[in-house]
Amino acid sequence: MRNSRRGAVDPFIVMDVMEAARQAEADGRRIVHMEVGQPGTAAPKGAQAALAEAMGDDALGYTVALGLPALRARIAQLYGDWYGVDLDPARVVVTSGSSGAFLLAFTALFDAGDRVAIGAPGYPSYRQILKALSLQPIDVPSVPENRLQPVPDDLQAMGFEGLMVASPANPTGTMLDRSAMGALIDLCREKNAAFISDEIYHGIEYEAKAVTALELTDDCYVINSFSKYFSMTGWRVGWMVVPQDHVRKVERLAQNMFICAPHASQVAALAAMECHEELEANMAVYRANRQLMIEGLPKAGFDKFAPPDGAFYFYVDVSDYTDDSRAFARWILDEAGVAVTPGLDFDPVRGATTLRFSYARATEDIAEGLARLGTFMSKVR
Amino acid sequence: MRNSRRGAVDPFIVMDVMEAARQAEADGRRIVHMEVGQPGTAAPKGAQAALAEAMGDDALGYTVALGLPALRARIAQLYGDWYGVDLDPARVVVTSGSSGAFLLAFTALFDAGDRVAIGAPGYPSYRQILKALSLQPIDVPSVPENRLQPVPDDLQAMGFEGLMVASPANPTGTMLDRSAMGALIDLCREKNAAFISDEIYHGIEYEAKAVTALELTDDCYVINSFSKYFSMTGWRVGWMVVPQDHVRKVERLAQNMFICAPHASQVAALAAMECHEELEANMAVYRANRQLMIEGLPKAGFDKFAPPDGAFYFYVDVSDYTDDSRAFARWILDEAGVAVTPGLDFDPVRGATTLRFSYARATEDIAEGLARLGTFMSKVR
Repeated sequence: MRNSRRGAVDPFIVMDVMEAARQAEADGRRIVHMEVGQPGTAAPKGAQAALAEAMGDDALGYTVALGLPALRARIAQLYGDWYGVDLDPARVVVTSGSSGAFLLAFTALFDAGDRVAIGAPGYPSYRQILKALSLQPIDVPSVPENRLQPVPDDLQAMGFEGLMVASPANPTGTMLDRSAMGALIDLCREKNAAFISDEIYHGIEYEAKAVTALELTDDCYVINSFSKYFSMTGWRVGWMVVPQDHVRKVERLAQNMFICAPHASQVAALAAMECHEELEANMAVYRANRQLMIEGLPKAGFDKFAPPDGAFYFYVDVSDYTDDSRAFARWILDEAGVAVTPGLDFDPVRGATTLRFSYARATEDIAEGLARLGTFMSKVR
Repeated sequence: MRNSRRGAVDPFIVMDVMEAARQAEADGRRIVHMEVGQPGTAAPKGAQAALAEAMGDDALGYTVALGLPALRARIAQLYGDWYGVDLDPARVVVTSGSSGAFLLAFTALFDAGDRVAIGAPGYPSYRQILKALSLQPIDVPSVPENRLQPVPDDLQAMGFEGLMVASPANPTGTMLDRSAMGALIDLCREKNAAFISDEIYHGIEYEAKAVTALELTDDCYVINSFSKYFSMTGWRVGWMVVPQDHVRKVERLAQNMFICAPHASQVAALAAMECHEELEANMAVYRANRQLMIEGLPKAGFDKFAPPDGAFYFYVDVSDYTDDSRAFARWILDEAGVAVTPGLDFDPVRGATTLRFSYARATEDIAEGLARLGTFMSKVR
């Protein structure tokens, strides 16, 4: 059978860690999971109840391609509530997770061979999805002085047809403030490049509110999801905001490529948006976990990081201890029973000396993980 | 904002009919829906109950990319039950509907510019998804003598890197028997082209059991879904069977492009596979509807069709009445209050003289629709 070149996707390096962790658990060991990129919590109770009710009343067939009108309207309202942005619901596209939004955005904006700049470190799937669509990912190495976010100086000399940013970012949790994001938007306008803002971690913020690109321009694609703040990863429902004159085109692409986002998930998502108390309880856990990490990681010897503005990750420079983050992560798993993610998944070059620690799980797990890391590192240092 | 060329997707012509139907209903008219491509029934009760229970017990986070192991095993078992094929569950990939399977298959198999042959008439989204992925759809006009299915003679002189067939097909409901499918598989082997079999309507068959490509070869991609026989369109869950040596590659693509199919839908789908009684009750309705159509359509003057082997459509040659199927469909809607699909969506050239009638809804709707069509046509003829 034939094979495509573009389908030759790099493996996730963390998969080796996860498989080893699974094996250790099968052997009866207790592993602390600091590698995971998702909340340990379920969808809010109100979301589950709404779906249980809808299943009795409704056949839950296809929805229209752009999503349930009530959900699109409610998402538009969120932009008023969170950012003071007046958003036309017609510009909101409900998608099959942010994954579906990436596929739609990239096909709507770019042709085969086009170059899309992405920050390194960054979410590994950006690169792989771009390649699968015959696009060229262009890594933009960012520096600690800019909190590992790209700045116009990094991009000025590069040629590209699109720029994708994430704020708060995975794996760093750092954000672009209004002026930093504005500078990147201006640069894209100069270069006639599309600006895509991945805002999937919005709502999970600690010091300042995250800035949406829509505060600064309508000439962008904004991607978000119910996976993180709304704690609905497995439901595969997210959204995208597009310029008014792109709605029809994205609608036609969505009709053909997806038909619609999962109907049941859309019903649950709409209800989730009213579950403020439960969602804020989740946030209280993240806040407590983050504080534990800020204190505990340096005690263990992991002190080279920028405290995250949002999301639930610490991205730590471990160059004092290793130049092989994959082997180091494996060592931590074997010795300490803590699963962590090697930086190589996020930055194929410099990630050899970094690790990502997630604090998305329960506080007792985070405390246990930090204790184990401390014991392990006291032997290593 | 930039626009891609490949994102310039043709609109569905039936959308105009559906919008006009919606408007008529808003004005208080009762419309009979014979344009729809989905069951009117909900997911089986057992599927709903399984999900309701799982919501209480499980956070329903991401599943592994290839899908819940129990679901993959149960799907493999289906190939034993339905076709006597012994299938390794490791070759089963759970997807976000057949839509997700098309995206995975096309990126795993083809590079930008590759040509994929598809029968005309055929499912309109094949063409649009291929274009969105920078691939070239190659229309293969099929003829009534071959029941509007492609045969090797149609393809011999063409160059292509892949062939996609559907059996039972949309819009015709006709099937490829074992020897017809075998001939196409042989041709693809000669031409070093990938063979993709869309089997989404399997289970909805009337005279003979549909043949799966897996009875004939392991060197193919087979795509199926829970949308049709299992009555779960809006849940966006389907599957794909790939050659053993493609599993790892498809897994990596799926991890990056989709993360996973909706977890809740996977839970519901697994339970749906045991809901034999309810699913057979749906089949009894389709059988009764089909019989009504076989008798009623010719009475109304629509007698140029091949009785469907499967699915829930009749594809009718209306060249005696029109050379503009779009206008004719609109006329039927306005005069008779019956929504039907112009053939142009399935065959951009010859579809100007064809209509597709769906009988997926309740029997009383089909009877009412046929009565209205009879009255309308008695004036036209």
